[in-house]
Amino acid sequence: MELLLKEMIEKNRPLTSFGKVATYIPELSNVDSNILGIAILDKEGQLYKAGDYDIKFTLQSVSKPITLMLALMDCGKELVFDKVGMEPTGDPFNSMRKLETLNPSKPLNPMINAGAIVATSLIKGNDNQEKFNRLMDTFKKISNNSKLAINESVYLSEKKTGDRNRSMAYFLRDVGILNGDVEEILDLYFKQCSIEVNCVDVANMGMFLANQGILKTGEQFAPKHITQIVKTFMVTCGMYDASGEFAINVGVPSKSGVGGGIMCAVPNRMGIGVVGPALDNKGNSVAGVKVLKAVSEHLSLSIF
Amino acid sequence: MELLLKEMIEKNRPLTSFGKVATYIPELSNVDSNILGIAILDKEGQLYKAGDYDIKFTLQSVSKPITLMLALMDCGKELVFDKVGMEPTGDPFNSMRKLETLNPSKPLNPMINAGAIVATSLIKGNDNQEKFNRLMDTFKKISNNSKLAINESVYLSEKKTGDRNRSMAYFLRDVGILNGDVEEILDLYFKQCSIEVNCVDVANMGMFLANQGILKTGEQFAPKHITQIVKTFMVTCGMYDASGEFAINVGVPSKSGVGGGIMCAVPNRMGIGVVGPALDNKGNSVAGVKVLKAVSEHLSLSIF
Amino acid sequence: MELLLKEMIEKNRPLTSFGKVATYIPELSNVDSNILGIAILDKEGQLYKAGDYDIKFTLQSVSKPITLMLALMDCGKELVFDKVGMEPTGDPFNSMRKLETLNPSKPLNPMINAGAIVATSLIKGNDNQEKFNRLMDTFKKISNNSKLAINESVYLSEKKTGDRNRSMAYFLRDVGILNGDVEEILDLYFKQCSIEVNCVDVANMGMFLANQGILKTGEQFAPKHITQIVKTFMVTCGMYDASGEFAINVGVPSKSGVGGGIMCAVPNRMGIGVVGPALDNKGNSVAGVKVLKAVSEHLSLSIF
Amino acid sequence: MELLLKEMIEKNRPLTSFGKVATYIPELSNVDSNILGIAILDKEGQLYKAGDYDIKFTLQSVSKPITLMLALMDCGKELVFDKVGMEPTGDPFNSMRKLETLNPSKPLNPMINAGAIVATSLIKGNDNQEKFNRLMDTFKKISNNSKLAINESVYLSEKKTGDRNRSMAYFLRDVGILNGDVEEILDLYFKQCSIEVNCVDVANMGMFLANQGILKTGEQFAPKHITQIVKTFMVTCGMYDASGEFAINVGVPSKSGVGGGIMCAVPNRMGIGVVGPALDNKGNSVAGVKVLKAVSEHLSLSIF
Repeated sequence: MELLLKEMIEKNRPLTSFGKVATYIPELSNVDSNILGIAILDKEGQLYKAGDYDIKFTLQSVSKPITLMLALMDCGKELVFDKVGMEPTGDPFNSMRKLETLNPSKPLNPMINAGAIVATSLIKGNDNQEKFNRLMDTFKKISNNSKLAINESVYLSEKKTGDRNRSMAYFLRDVGILNGDVEEILDLYFKQCSIEVNCVDVANMGMFLANQGILKTGEQFAPKHITQIVKTFMVTCGMYDASGEFAINVGVPSKSGVGGGIMCAVPNRMGIGVVGPALDNKGNSVAGVKVLKAVSEHLSLSIF
Repeated sequence: MELLLKEMIEKNRPLTSFGKVATYIPELSNVDSNILGIAILDKEGQLYKAGDYDIKFTLQSVSKPITLMLALMDCGKELVFDKVGMEPTGDPFNSMRKLETLNPSKPLNPMINAGAIVATSLIKGNDNQEKFNRLMDTFKKISNNSKLAINESVYLSEKKTGDRNRSMAYFLRDVGILNGDVEEILDLYFKQCSIEVNCVDVANMGMFLANQGILKTGEQFAPKHITQIVKTFMVTCGMYDASGEFAINVGVPSKSGVGGGIMCAVPNRMGIGVVGPALDNKGNSVAGVKVLKAVSEHLSLSIF
Repeated sequence: MELLLKEMIEKNRPLTSFGKVATYIPELSNVDSNILGIAILDKEGQLYKAGDYDIKFTLQSVSKPITLMLALMDCGKELVFDKVGMEPTGDPFNSMRKLETLNPSKPLNPMINAGAIVATSLIKGNDNQEKFNRLMDTFKKISNNSKLAINESVYLSEKKTGDRNRSMAYFLRDVGILNGDVEEILDLYFKQCSIEVNCVDVANMGMFLANQGILKTGEQFAPKHITQIVKTFMVTCGMYDASGEFAINVGVPSKSGVGGGIMCAVPNRMGIGVVGPALDNKGNSVAGVKVLKAVSEHLSLSIF
Repeated sequence: MELLLKEMIEKNRPLTSFGKVATYIPELSNVDSNILGIAILDKEGQLYKAGDYDIKFTLQSVSKPITLMLALMDCGKELVFDKVGMEPTGDPFNSMRKLETLNPSKPLNPMINAGAIVATSLIKGNDNQEKFNRLMDTFKKISNNSKLAINESVYLSEKKTGDRNRSMAYFLRDVGILNGDVEEILDLYFKQCSIEVNCVDVANMGMFLANQGILKTGEQFAPKHITQIVKTFMVTCGMYDASGEFAINVGVPSKSGVGGGIMCAVPNRMGIGVVGPALDNKGNSVAGVKVLKAVSEHLSLSIF
């Protein structure tokens, strides 16, 4: 199996030259663009890895399904979906136009930035520090890695250049969807995006979702129905406005981030973590998507 | 099992009063609004039915996945997706605005009207009659019902009042996506929408897709990978702009139509046909969706 | 004065190389792209001309203000503006997106194609021939040229390739704004667009509007308040989505067409006809606009 | 003349009951809704007034043409229009959707909020205090009222509830249109909106524009071509997305504000100030617009 993965990695690595590392967050643009790695953790606990599986990268949007999960655990389905929708958009991840034309003007789903900021704002805690601690604890548990931490320089870079997110947040507060101090909410959001992981961490996170919310310890950390909601969003909106194409070609609940990471949860079978910072024009890892297509076809992973 | 289905039908039938039968096609508005029925066909060939399962209704948009399947079999994945996209829209089924703002301006997916008209235009045949015969044969085979026919008065009603579809078709021809005579293409489209079925027919169609393209006879009528594509679209865009919510609440590849029908394909397990002409404001059967939620929860049908 | 105009024409003629003749109507693409001409008719009846003032071209959108005028004379302000709005759009002339998002979904103004088709549909007559005759008589009278005729090959070319206009018309009929046979209405519309004129004809038309609806004969052919409405639209929406910039730079009620023509009406002073088929990316004569800027500055024509 | 104005005021005052005072800025909602007043200052210096002409109200958007004028004087036409467009939008004043879909994504014109904020950001000064002083001096001079001041409670109310404007400003900074500290720019913007005036002040401002930038003292305070630009915007975009209709019905360069004020500049003839805080659904004084229609018809003020 690892041999096979190595083959797929090396076969697809040249594709990284067709993508570009994210530049809108300056700190992300320093990354080596031909990185490509994968880790697979199956239900039996077997771990397979290949390529740059131990390279560190920041979660970025890969954090969104987990924040949503915590918000659902904290506030319940009804309250959360009163403030953020359930529908794919067909628009880019940082688009605001639907906010204005829709009635009610809540973000269409929690995988686009506007909706993810709402989810972050719903995490409970007496102050921002407590909220961050609760979020961080969640990530540590489900990645089975107690040493997880944020990348300070990425975090500061995001905070400094996050005007589009500020714009969304003020819009959402104006229409009554977001409550509280905008800079505090965004601070938490920028931090969650800056959590540093490697492919093995992400494979653990994916396996946790694939296993219906059960930790490696056997503990049911999140309710099954909430992890199902999360995986549903990963299919319908997990890969930005290329989610439909990815569902057809790969067919596995997945979430990508502009740090180059992709987290996959194959229900009841395995979690997968991929890294490949060279992105296509939709914001997904150009070689990572191809590797996942090969893996899915080889292992018949499609849920359809 | 049939007892359980009967219970669910009767429990949800009062909900029909919260919906409205489609009126934009005059002929559809004559339907009894409190109709509600279901049929389930499992992989073992067992058929369960309840309520108004034998009432006839027209397929309308439920025909779209099948036409897409035939277009994919006729022209191949590459050509089809050169003319129609793979992404959910977040817009209503008859929306045209994305056609104008997108580049290239192809319809976002084959489940919205614009994309479905494109799929219909790709069906092969020397003339419209041959195309219709090939389409009709396909529906007869997969529904296991050689007596399937179109409802003439619905067909004529659609043809007479189909100006929005004409508008889309001329737009698509203007941008080079649609080739050929617009009225001929629409004639075929209106006919496919007017095919009359009951829940058992639709359950057979769903089972065919659930069974990866294998007919009751054992014949592999459509390639497995094409039926997977079709089921993927049913998850991401099968329930109009409520597809995301339906995926969360039911979690089964499904396609609804304004005739009140819903076709479900539970991969490797069963096909389901539902009818309930009273629609919610998104165009889905208001009581039918609730029945499917109950069935999915009871039988753990979610693919996530 | 003619010397001055000649100078301005020759100085700006090189700019024609920065534009392109319209190609979306095949017949228009055969035109010589470095044509540039102007004719000015003042209130005293003095005519000044320069460059290719006697070259023939088709009116295209320059016909829109006149059709609107006739529709207003036929049906009155209330009925006309019940079906078409009074507001500039900020969108291209063939845009349909606002039709869908606005409520009510009437075209924003009668200078964009959708709104112009509505205006044409309101012209009275027992049949299409009579409507065309009434329209043609109006153009002959106000251009002071009884020999005006349509260019058959342009007309047929427009009819053959007018799918975008067909798309709009069917949309408008679907939402109840347009009544009657779509192909008949479009036939009349394509004919009005294909009327052939030269700069002197257009200068006469402009002078008629500048003179508050009074013909050269002294006859009050159209009511003053209707010609004021028409001139207002020429300022707010006469130059497609460059109307605002043109109002700032030239400041004169004007209407351009993709045939390269521009008609100007300087209230109580003069009419101007310009031709220059090389268009900028908004659809306005690239050199024609510059000539008008020079003329307006030299003669202080701005109404602001 | 004053008798006539009084008649028009009293005849139209009942219309105030069909409008509503602005509520989105809490402090504005306390205003008496049946206020209606007018002041006219003609070129000869004659002042006519009627109704509540001496009631104080805040300028709000009526300030926009003047800030644009100062920005044009400070930075020149080229630089200003590099950052804000010249075209009407067809969208509401606080709309952001065009910002996202346009390329380049600069605000369509300086009369909508997004564009006005850009204009404010271009006013020169070593710090915000100096900028405000320069702006305030301009308003004092052209209103011929050295006692002009801002209404503190309105200013604070705007600042507190200005999240939509914050959203726009951060968006504009994200796309590189706005430079500098967002809260500082908005502070200046909220102050300019909170300047308190009465109808006589506004009539003076209108007369200054009508008189091509010449103060009562005879001083050419602003260049003629800049005041023409300003008046052009007042016609094409001065009355929000009812500018087209107003141009047809009144035909005079005008700018309204949600404080209920309207400033009119009849080129070379007169300035008019109107107040009527009960607004229609587009944000214009419902009775004020009717009074201006009557005045325009009676005095033949239309520039078309």
